[in-house]
Amino acid sequence: MTSSLTHIRIVGAGLIGTSIALALRAQGVIVTLCDSDPRAQSLARDLMGDSGAEVSTMEDLCIIATPPKAIAEVIEIELKRNPELRVMDVSSIKTKPLLDVSKTALSITSFAPTHPMAGREVSGPESARGDLFQGRPWILSLDGVDQSLAAMVKEVVDLCGGIAINRTVDEHDRAVALVSHLPQIVASLLASQLNGSQGSDLEIAGAGLRDTTRIAESDAELWAQILAGNSPALRPLLISLQNDLSKAIANLDDPTAMAELITQGRRGRALIPGKHGGQQRNYTYLAIVIDDKPGQLAAIIEACASVHVNIEDLAIEHTPGQQTGLITLAFSPHDSVIVASHLEKEGWKVHPSR
Amino acid sequence: MTSSLTHIRIVGAGLIGTSIALALRAQGVIVTLCDSDPRAQSLARDLMGDSGAEVSTMEDLCIIATPPKAIAEVIEIELKRNPELRVMDVSSIKTKPLLDVSKTALSITSFAPTHPMAGREVSGPESARGDLFQGRPWILSLDGVDQSLAAMVKEVVDLCGGIAINRTVDEHDRAVALVSHLPQIVASLLASQLNGSQGSDLEIAGAGLRDTTRIAESDAELWAQILAGNSPALRPLLISLQNDLSKAIANLDDPTAMAELITQGRRGRALIPGKHGGQQRNYTYLAIVIDDKPGQLAAIIEACASVHVNIEDLAIEHTPGQQTGLITLAFSPHDSVIVASHLEKEGWKVHPSR
Repeated sequence: MTSSLTHIRIVGAGLIGTSIALALRAQGVIVTLCDSDPRAQSLARDLMGDSGAEVSTMEDLCIIATPPKAIAEVIEIELKRNPELRVMDVSSIKTKPLLDVSKTALSITSFAPTHPMAGREVSGPESARGDLFQGRPWILSLDGVDQSLAAMVKEVVDLCGGIAINRTVDEHDRAVALVSHLPQIVASLLASQLNGSQGSDLEIAGAGLRDTTRIAESDAELWAQILAGNSPALRPLLISLQNDLSKAIANLDDPTAMAELITQGRRGRALIPGKHGGQQRNYTYLAIVIDDKPGQLAAIIEACASVHVNIEDLAIEHTPGQQTGLITLAFSPHDSVIVASHLEKEGWKVHPSR
Repeated sequence: MTSSLTHIRIVGAGLIGTSIALALRAQGVIVTLCDSDPRAQSLARDLMGDSGAEVSTMEDLCIIATPPKAIAEVIEIELKRNPELRVMDVSSIKTKPLLDVSKTALSITSFAPTHPMAGREVSGPESARGDLFQGRPWILSLDGVDQSLAAMVKEVVDLCGGIAINRTVDEHDRAVALVSHLPQIVASLLASQLNGSQGSDLEIAGAGLRDTTRIAESDAELWAQILAGNSPALRPLLISLQNDLSKAIANLDDPTAMAELITQGRRGRALIPGKHGGQQRNYTYLAIVIDDKPGQLAAIIEACASVHVNIEDLAIEHTPGQQTGLITLAFSPHDSVIVASHLEKEGWKVHPSR
């Protein structure tokens, strides 16, 4: 892909800003990445292999990837440096930042509200990935936005591998309240119930609890802004949940009511569409039972290296109070065959996933 | 591993029963697998490569792997066939089945309540895996159980690769209410909120919604029995959740209250053990930027081994087409200081977590 964009300035070296920087850099775009936090900026620039040298040309487009509360303030600062500023934001709420920006000196036609649907529960540049947006929806609210700015925004989404989806700011805020903000509150409230529990109760926790509370690890400051900033769309959903929860408590002893509750959940779950034509990571997973002692991990990694396969991902699971553990390695299907055979020959207990 | 168990009868060819059958068969145990549903029985026997020929010897142990409601009924039927019946159950609740069994002709000392913590959101023999229990906790409530039966139960757990954990039936039911049944209701209620939504809103759903509602796919009939059957332990947890949800709705516009809600969730989430003995995770994470080429991971692991530190967890992030990758290593706070200093001296780009 060749680009007509030559220089992009990104303010905010968090997960999203740094991931965009990595993606654009890979496509040959000159990227300047700034952050008010020196640690984030330094780590992000290391990840990009940056020399730290300043770029002399003025940027075509400034992407603001800060928490939503800071967008208007950043615009005022950036306007002093570049009076021709054209901005694309990537925040998780759209109505409130648009209102904030309308009070700045920036023409509202020079502000393009967008939102890549590609967050993670982890944050910061250390969690950034250049392929974070591959095949993921990227919502654009370009009504009334200057045409040349709109064209640049679409190019950024293309270069990042995202799938452009047009929504008004109202449509956006209603949709994310349901698919993102409601799950966040639910996961956080569920995880909160673990506080004060007996430690031994949590020893038997399995994948169900882990998955259901995964996004409870999200950043508190950022999410406080998102949830409070989208309260008009979020409140009716929480009230509906509250009503259903009250009914569940009232009918808890009734298996028929409980079956209906699960059935309604299955019905709702089935409405979630599959992948958006995006690339699915096609890995084969090998589960390897090990003695949980120093040197085992290194020995497995070395065994993999000896047959020249690439480990795509790795997870370590220790078992409560026991001397065995489980290491799960992800490989391309091709590599997995090679490495499974080799590891088995070397005496490892290998369990390929189906 | 050699076994003193020669013949096990399993009643219930669902996910758990068939997985146990596959695991025991792999260890050389003779397994007879039965189900009142002919399709399940036939599919399970096909999966096991069974000839269908009847085994003439009487079983050492009968494992009942039906939904909890059916346990007592199955026992009455099995007793007619084998008056010396000794039973191990594997259901998700313990108090209620034990009460049911106490009303049968089976001596309560011949009934061993157990629960392997290894469910999946999918069900049926087609989802069974012989390694389903590898390294997973398997709860045993063996107070008052006949010693020879208790020994056989432990052998079954060993043969399946499970980790025996002793709990009273009350301790079990309280723990699973928190780590399994509460997440199930929450996931189902959350997924229910998707019913009646505008289809276009769900088009942008991401991994957060998907993970948070994954277990909402669970089987309605089975879970109705589990939830209603454990209502005494589950109700106070649901009421606590209800109170927290009401507070969240009342304070939705207040970013400080929302930050506190997320922070409490992070605190609870951090209590979920991934590690030995259910200790709270207290790791320091080091983010290390590497050149994304073979040998880098092995070199880092070796560098860690050379200063005798224990890698508690490890994550790999890499981007196709990028020249850099990121490895995140988790250490005890003590080890992290040693290893960070060593890695920096060796020229690695190390970024300790904030």
